[in-house]
Amino acid sequence: MNKTKVSIKDIAQKAGVSTALVSYVLNGKEKESRVGQEIATKVRQIAAELNYQPSHLAKSLRSGKTHTIGLVIADISNPFFANIARVVEDEAKRNGYTVIIGSSDENASKSRDLLEVLINRQVDGFIIVSSENSEDQIRSLNDRHIPFVLLDRYFPEIPTDFVSTDHYRASYDAATHLVKNQYKHIGMIAYDSQMFHMHERIRGYQDALRDNPINAHEHWLKRVKISAIDTGVKAAIDTMLATDQPVDALLFATYSLAVSGLKYINKLGVRVPDDLAIVSFGQAEVFELYHCPITYIKQPIGLLGQTAVELLVKKLTHKPTEPEQILMKAELIERASSKTHKTLIT
Amino acid sequence: MNKTKVSIKDIAQKAGVSTALVSYVLNGKEKESRVGQEIATKVRQIAAELNYQPSHLAKSLRSGKTHTIGLVIADISNPFFANIARVVEDEAKRNGYTVIIGSSDENASKSRDLLEVLINRQVDGFIIVSSENSEDQIRSLNDRHIPFVLLDRYFPEIPTDFVSTDHYRASYDAATHLVKNQYKHIGMIAYDSQMFHMHERIRGYQDALRDNPINAHEHWLKRVKISAIDTGVKAAIDTMLATDQPVDALLFATYSLAVSGLKYINKLGVRVPDDLAIVSFGQAEVFELYHCPITYIKQPIGLLGQTAVELLVKKLTHKPTEPEQILMKAELIERASSKTHKTLIT
Repeated sequence: MNKTKVSIKDIAQKAGVSTALVSYVLNGKEKESRVGQEIATKVRQIAAELNYQPSHLAKSLRSGKTHTIGLVIADISNPFFANIARVVEDEAKRNGYTVIIGSSDENASKSRDLLEVLINRQVDGFIIVSSENSEDQIRSLNDRHIPFVLLDRYFPEIPTDFVSTDHYRASYDAATHLVKNQYKHIGMIAYDSQMFHMHERIRGYQDALRDNPINAHEHWLKRVKISAIDTGVKAAIDTMLATDQPVDALLFATYSLAVSGLKYINKLGVRVPDDLAIVSFGQAEVFELYHCPITYIKQPIGLLGQTAVELLVKKLTHKPTEPEQILMKAELIERASSKTHKTLIT
Repeated sequence: MNKTKVSIKDIAQKAGVSTALVSYVLNGKEKESRVGQEIATKVRQIAAELNYQPSHLAKSLRSGKTHTIGLVIADISNPFFANIARVVEDEAKRNGYTVIIGSSDENASKSRDLLEVLINRQVDGFIIVSSENSEDQIRSLNDRHIPFVLLDRYFPEIPTDFVSTDHYRASYDAATHLVKNQYKHIGMIAYDSQMFHMHERIRGYQDALRDNPINAHEHWLKRVKISAIDTGVKAAIDTMLATDQPVDALLFATYSLAVSGLKYINKLGVRVPDDLAIVSFGQAEVFELYHCPITYIKQPIGLLGQTAVELLVKKLTHKPTEPEQILMKAELIERASSKTHKTLIT
């Protein structure tokens, strides 16, 4: 039977030396401490025999480095974030870091708890997909000089490193694509949220309509509470289809909104794209396997995750300079759900 | 500007007392240490003014409790595990625990690294969705008396707490359902894996055919490498449809296999269920939004996650007794993809 844990004391007793000497040897400081080569070898052998596991915890307290990255994501059950997490892990591993993950469930207080738990677990730094109302937490990390990089979502008024999709441009391009394909009544369902990335997605849609130019009906843009997606999306679609200028195309601002919307559209028997064209943010198997493949805004998940790790590792290994702020271009993957409108019965 | 971190030394200097005294007070030991009430109050006030954050790390080393659970899942990008993670988090929070997550990507060596990293981060215990070839790690946790509960996958030869779907029964019921709905040539695509749960899923399928009785063709059961799902599934389906007794129904052993299979079936123009009925393990939006809604084996994700937390918390707060081993029943959600076979042209 193994003992629960082998200590330095156990090794010292077996080797007949002091615990201090064992500690010097196991921390690679035998030369500075003038420990003889023979004794050092003996100590190492005994440590190996006893299967001694150094406490990284105690070691971290001394060195201040743990080679661990804390990844805080907004919702682990959203495939976009789950896939980002996978990329961050792979890239971190390549750089010699282990990732421990926490999910804030789009909840600022949970995010605060997680950050503190992970800080107390001595992670070297963070990659964070922020949740709403977490600006104070980000400012506090800045003030405490804790290294971090924001991923996908950022606060333009706080000077931080970030890497994000250009949400405005992605949305602008998606709406413009619908205009080009002869849709005239283009709606959008977004979250009712203070998050900057959501505002950017809405602004891109609005500017594309204005520039083309299309006079948007007041009911074409709906904001849905993240805590009640299904009822919100249902009400939004009902209103949009019942107005005197019903929408002929719909842009979903997130994957979760789209999934909810597609379920309801199926139920209503609305045909895609003949009755209603669809474009959505995010990528997922659903969009490919839906009876009419869905046009989607493909965010550069691989590049986003890799660059976030790269920026963070740079911060951890060099003196920090000015914040690096990177916006990446999304790609519109055109499928059947938004193909050119054939007949316009208006 | 804040300093990076306020230390006990900072408080001691400001209060004009020793660091030892500050430490006594902040650890609530002023009485044992005969520190005067007035001094104690002053120290606490200064600590509050300076916004002193006790290092939970150092505190953990003393108390040995961190109220943190390590959750190791097999693949974070699989929605089944991502949803399980969400449930475990919610339930842990209700019990006053924070969850930190690691994903082993179905890789035993990564799983080993993660366990060590999390042990060194002083988690109180683990909930683990094991990856293949990780038996030694599980045995080692047992030997080291580290509390853990296995979730969804277990090793029958190792005495551990676990909570899992009854994979054998779920598979048996799914295949029996296909037989009842008049399918005669029932195939299965599973992983080529040593994992016990995968063997159980295959055994359930085989026993259901034997009991009904159907003479299974050798090409009806295919095992696909997890590292090459798309090519494996494609080859399997090609073979199964080209044999002299082509399959008229197909059971997918996992969500990922099903998604890959459905994409290929779409490409081939095979009609579901007229040409080929489909049943799959796992649950996901894909199954609902596919042009023909897919019959699936719904694992009790909520109950699995909740029970795993419950068992672990029990282990953490009571003396451990005999391992608790719980098998839960999955539910077959019958949809159009496996409805009764109308015409059998044989």
